[in-house]
Amino acid sequence: MTARMVYEDFEVDFVFDFEVPALDREDIIEFASRFDPQRFHLDEGEAVKTHFGGLVASGFQTQLLCFQPFCREILANSHAVGAPGIDKLKWLRPWHPGEALGGRVKLMRKRPSSRRRDRGYLEFLLEADVDEAPLFSMLWTVIMLTREGAGSHPRTHGDPSN
Amino acid sequence: MTARMVYEDFEVDFVFDFEVPALDREDIIEFASRFDPQRFHLDEGEAVKTHFGGLVASGFQTQLLCFQPFCREILANSHAVGAPGIDKLKWLRPWHPGEALGGRVKLMRKRPSSRRRDRGYLEFLLEADVDEAPLFSMLWTVIMLTREGAGSHPRTHGDPSN
Repeated sequence: MTARMVYEDFEVDFVFDFEVPALDREDIIEFASRFDPQRFHLDEGEAVKTHFGGLVASGFQTQLLCFQPFCREILANSHAVGAPGIDKLKWLRPWHPGEALGGRVKLMRKRPSSRRRDRGYLEFLLEADVDEAPLFSMLWTVIMLTREGAGSHPRTHGDPSN
Repeated sequence: MTARMVYEDFEVDFVFDFEVPALDREDIIEFASRFDPQRFHLDEGEAVKTHFGGLVASGFQTQLLCFQPFCREILANSHAVGAPGIDKLKWLRPWHPGEALGGRVKLMRKRPSSRRRDRGYLEFLLEADVDEAPLFSMLWTVIMLTREGAGSHPRTHGDPSN
């Protein structure tokens, strides 16, 4: 069994850099058809009639594709056990077809649970840019087991999200 | 051309009710494989080793599937032109396979843009429950064209998201 990261392994200088490849029009339309069927995500001819001036990605597609590298490389190899929520999410400019994104996830704060020794809270800020101009940000909290929590019997009672 | 809803059409007593059908394990795994590959979203055998005690949906899948009915029925038939962000999002309990959700989207506040007569801001609160217990909520803002904005030349200069 690999050693998954625990609460104690995350230091306040933690930074994870990522890139998101450019989308093409078909990627944008396919996602929007399923989840966010607004005309400026679905149809170039309709999109040019709006203030966007052409097809742009759903903000939820931006959110997911920016989260995915951090999830795959960091969270999936950790004792993360979910998240209570998002404290702030900003869509700062539209994401157009053909634009690759660069970004980073920084640990902003960490604190142990006041009630339970088996877990702590990690507050991460994800920022993504296009050509160094801010495009998206998300501030959210991850629940991470401590070394003690990761080593204990995995099933506990009560609400697992608190 | 159908008459799309504009800023003036949304009153503060606006409520939209929705339902989200239950997911099965395959729905959860397919979404998570693509966007949120954590073990408690991917593999029943691994999920039982975590505090969740079994497979649960990605919080992003919850977010998207709760948003989708409102988007399809309301936003897609309006002069919405995007969103600046999410002010608060809460995952209050895990969403398990086989659980259908019920929910509503309420208009909490509306205000005209202070700088532009062509648009206003609508602050919506989406809440979803399972068996009347709160499971998810999202407070976010939508930019909506006014009657004047919807009737004007569609292309304007400057940042379309402000």
